[in-house]
Amino acid sequence: MTPLFLTFEGPEGAGKSTQLRRLAVRLEAAGVAHTVTREPGGTGLGTRVREVLLDPALDMDPLPEFLLYSASRAQLVREVLRPALSRGEVVLCDRYADSSLAYQGAGRGLESGLLRAVTAEVTGGLTPDLTVLLDLDPALGLHRAAQRGQPDRLEQADLAFHERVRRGFLDLARHEPERFLVLDAARGEAELSEAIWQAVGERLAQGRQPTAS
Amino acid sequence: MTPLFLTFEGPEGAGKSTQLRRLAVRLEAAGVAHTVTREPGGTGLGTRVREVLLDPALDMDPLPEFLLYSASRAQLVREVLRPALSRGEVVLCDRYADSSLAYQGAGRGLESGLLRAVTAEVTGGLTPDLTVLLDLDPALGLHRAAQRGQPDRLEQADLAFHERVRRGFLDLARHEPERFLVLDAARGEAELSEAIWQAVGERLAQGRQPTAS
Repeated sequence: MTPLFLTFEGPEGAGKSTQLRRLAVRLEAAGVAHTVTREPGGTGLGTRVREVLLDPALDMDPLPEFLLYSASRAQLVREVLRPALSRGEVVLCDRYADSSLAYQGAGRGLESGLLRAVTAEVTGGLTPDLTVLLDLDPALGLHRAAQRGQPDRLEQADLAFHERVRRGFLDLARHEPERFLVLDAARGEAELSEAIWQAVGERLAQGRQPTAS
Repeated sequence: MTPLFLTFEGPEGAGKSTQLRRLAVRLEAAGVAHTVTREPGGTGLGTRVREVLLDPALDMDPLPEFLLYSASRAQLVREVLRPALSRGEVVLCDRYADSSLAYQGAGRGLESGLLRAVTAEVTGGLTPDLTVLLDLDPALGLHRAAQRGQPDRLEQADLAFHERVRRGFLDLARHEPERFLVLDAARGEAELSEAIWQAVGERLAQGRQPTAS
């Protein structure tokens, strides 16, 4: 059993959840033990924090917003991610620390030194082996998300914000090309699923790097 | 109008809320504009975070617990405390940053460097002009709190935890004797109220220090 930590990142409406489910189905069919989780959420605490974060009625400054994401993340690392990796499973996580750097850093303008210092404590250094970044023009992503119904608090932010977030993600990918698989989310679902499956297969064959655990 | 930032600290059942109300009544009678608030809480976001923090059914590690308190505090500083002080009001706050240092630091054992770094960002350096510490033997405080009904998540922690918290508060007071007014919470309500009123009167006459704003 090869533990492997995979995260899915990208803007609203890029198809992260769809691709995550497709990958889970393929892992299931291949008999690979895996855990599917998400941020914010994934634990009792995280689920409650998620409700607060996505509530369109709440006023929230960027710093408390980041601290709430971090609280959910800290509980998830301790309660779900590390135990699953210790059992040798493949972990699929819908959003992780890169989302805070992109949304609260690049998007909201929080200083990245603070974000990185808190995130280092929160994750205890647990870094994904592979991060699938589904890159998409924000205008298209928001259009897709809007079709799902009432927009949540983040989906209501303006287009300029979502363009900063997109650039934030792409900057992160540029700095860690070995960890990131950047895919054009406008491609077809089946084609994207195939590209992801191939990258995961390579990582499974290669195994988890001891430094990242 | 002299803005003044007053906080009330101490263990469960020490009578913080009672003394805060008594002080508010005296300020009202003296015609002093004031704002009463509390932590966690005091804002829409803080109220939601408070519900999560006090829920006895939730598993929560010390780090996410601290981050949730910090999120509530960050929103309170920006939405309530600074605006009220800018209007020249006296602000009475039931718990503030010292509680995190005592509960999550001394009590839960989180490293104080992290606590202080996050707290400095969260408060933006906003420090109380006067902190009333109602000191009480934890066994007595928990007994008092239990008489109020179902214990919340923090009241359920064991006595050794509450003894570490008490020592944490007393250490903070020892390091900043000018900011702290330490009172024996076993004394009568009226007597405590009188001692607090006297200290507040002195601070009001003296005015807020520019360095603390």
